[in-house]
Amino acid sequence: MKLLHTADWHIGKELGGFSLLSEQEAAFKKMLDIAIAEKVDGVIIAGDLYDRAIASTQAVTALERMLKEMNLTHHLPIYAVSGNHDGATRLGAGHEWREQTELFLNTTLAGAFKPVETPEAQIYLLPFIEPTTARVYYQIPEDELAAYQSIEQVMSRIVQDMVATFDPQKQHILVTHYYVTGAGNADYEFTSETNSRVGGLKGITADQFSAFDYVALGHLHLREASPTTTIQYAGSPVKFNTKEAQTEKGVFIVDITSDAVHTTWYPITPTKDLIVLSAPFETLINPEFYQQYARNHANFFSIRIQGVAHTTNARATLVDIYGDVVEVQYDLPALTMVDQVIPEVVADDVSDDDLIATFYQEVTQESLTAAQERVIADTLVQLRQQEEG
Amino acid sequence: MKLLHTADWHIGKELGGFSLLSEQEAAFKKMLDIAIAEKVDGVIIAGDLYDRAIASTQAVTALERMLKEMNLTHHLPIYAVSGNHDGATRLGAGHEWREQTELFLNTTLAGAFKPVETPEAQIYLLPFIEPTTARVYYQIPEDELAAYQSIEQVMSRIVQDMVATFDPQKQHILVTHYYVTGAGNADYEFTSETNSRVGGLKGITADQFSAFDYVALGHLHLREASPTTTIQYAGSPVKFNTKEAQTEKGVFIVDITSDAVHTTWYPITPTKDLIVLSAPFETLINPEFYQQYARNHANFFSIRIQGVAHTTNARATLVDIYGDVVEVQYDLPALTMVDQVIPEVVADDVSDDDLIATFYQEVTQESLTAAQERVIADTLVQLRQQEEG
Repeated sequence: MKLLHTADWHIGKELGGFSLLSEQEAAFKKMLDIAIAEKVDGVIIAGDLYDRAIASTQAVTALERMLKEMNLTHHLPIYAVSGNHDGATRLGAGHEWREQTELFLNTTLAGAFKPVETPEAQIYLLPFIEPTTARVYYQIPEDELAAYQSIEQVMSRIVQDMVATFDPQKQHILVTHYYVTGAGNADYEFTSETNSRVGGLKGITADQFSAFDYVALGHLHLREASPTTTIQYAGSPVKFNTKEAQTEKGVFIVDITSDAVHTTWYPITPTKDLIVLSAPFETLINPEFYQQYARNHANFFSIRIQGVAHTTNARATLVDIYGDVVEVQYDLPALTMVDQVIPEVVADDVSDDDLIATFYQEVTQESLTAAQERVIADTLVQLRQQEEG
Repeated sequence: MKLLHTADWHIGKELGGFSLLSEQEAAFKKMLDIAIAEKVDGVIIAGDLYDRAIASTQAVTALERMLKEMNLTHHLPIYAVSGNHDGATRLGAGHEWREQTELFLNTTLAGAFKPVETPEAQIYLLPFIEPTTARVYYQIPEDELAAYQSIEQVMSRIVQDMVATFDPQKQHILVTHYYVTGAGNADYEFTSETNSRVGGLKGITADQFSAFDYVALGHLHLREASPTTTIQYAGSPVKFNTKEAQTEKGVFIVDITSDAVHTTWYPITPTKDLIVLSAPFETLINPEFYQQYARNHANFFSIRIQGVAHTTNARATLVDIYGDVVEVQYDLPALTMVDQVIPEVVADDVSDDDLIATFYQEVTQESLTAAQERVIADTLVQLRQQEEG
């Protein structure tokens, strides 16, 4: 059985106030082309189809158009679950009708135990759920609650109940949306934009899924976060933040036979890329520097200004030059507080002018210019006059 | 062709803080029984399936269960449109998949011109839209905008474009959701809970729909508001407010042949009724009075207290007796200001005590009791002490 594995579409997401919809639609089209060219038997979407529990009407329209094109126009079966960003009930509305054309979208724990049966495989669709949902579903009595506290404990029971329904003649595939650790990602710095509860939900390990031939994960946005070669994150098809700017996005084509699982990575090149720049302001505004980048809405730019920008509105100047600037940050040595002692410059005999000059020096590693000194002196005079009424 | 005509389900609606869901589900079951017993060819739901544009997850779950039972379990075709309370995009999500089992749910103007074709009829599904939606859809040039200002003007164009697609061999049915006036409801006091824009949307008249054999309307909640016998409101299946308490709810069974249209009204008796009481407080708390009503959550009660309730918490007392009290109002003669002159009792030489006593007399038509006079006197003393510090 040959499947395309993708996840974390986050339709409706914005980046620095810019809609990512056109980029998401471009990535979708490339993904669809890969699925058609590879003649896959279906497409796995492992959660976080939407970016928010209550998706905007624009996001609803966009996702519906994609699902329709993939499933109704191109007749590709879809195997999908809801992730922690999705609103399970709203996303799941009407799923019984979608199943008639093999668009399987499960958003409930109850629906996870009845696999989609294909001639070769059983595909289990387990949405992101909180441990409390499992406690309610299993009607755990009070004296046994201690054994169902963590998601790791809950997952053991869920997998056990899935294994009980295994047809030994078939391959077993799990589609789910969690933070899963294993040998392959032991040293990995995770970058999923999960909510604050992720800490409490940590704990699922790859060995808990050893019964499955392939586990298609969503949640973490980079394939490098995959715990093993058969328990994988496909990552998001689009770059969602600066940390993901240097990474490669794409999809997996997974070929599952009774002998082996072969996975092949297909990169998806961004149509409108996210470019991270870090340079002194004078460099950033130098035509020789910026003309090497396609601008005029061809790319998104995340910009770090090294040192001080000697201008009244650096951001506006950069937007004029670069177009879609998703963020502007300052790279001032003193603002990175690691291993740094806050200097003690406060003393009774230091004048206000000197105090400000010293602070500026500390933060920027530069001295105040004469013009800056004049502004500060004038401001202090005005403040003293106001104080004295 | 035999159809059940209902409308204005308003799933998710609350009445005085009480969910109406159980009553809505009870009405749904009775409606379904009627449809099955009458062997209808389909069910029309003429808009406002939900009460709000962003329905609660409970409401989504409930409506999905109803649609599933009607369409997937009992294989009844459904012909539905979105109303002004529905969020068209969200309600319409997935409609292409629902159509595979003849659940037709149209939420766009574009979808209104391609009728559902049955062997005998063409069924046009026109959702509630604002005139501006039609102006965009038709791409009206600026110099012609004046002819597309009102919903009446817009409707003429829409109907004309529908008529152009008429198959003369078939019956023509329109399902829509508007305020339509005609001979039958000329003197009618409309009670739909429409938003403030209803004024600007008035103007559609029954004769605009004369090309259709039957027009199944939603929007107004009482069938008595129907403009003609073939351009009808089915009304809501459940009582939504005190004004609707004395009215009969139900559905129409509509039998449309090439010769004639026969409509039959099927009442739906509330499982948990809305009972309006109006009596002096002493009567309301008298067992001989209240024992004539099934209480203990068997009914909703809307209560008007005639005159003054001599108790510290009338509402709590009534809730103890009646259970689900959706509202408590006071029927004080002086609070109905029609044809009444506000008396001039303010004068410099009147003491605060006398001023309050006179006001109480005016409003309640009763004198203060000695105990009430003591409370007022004590309060005034405290206030004066506070003022003097």
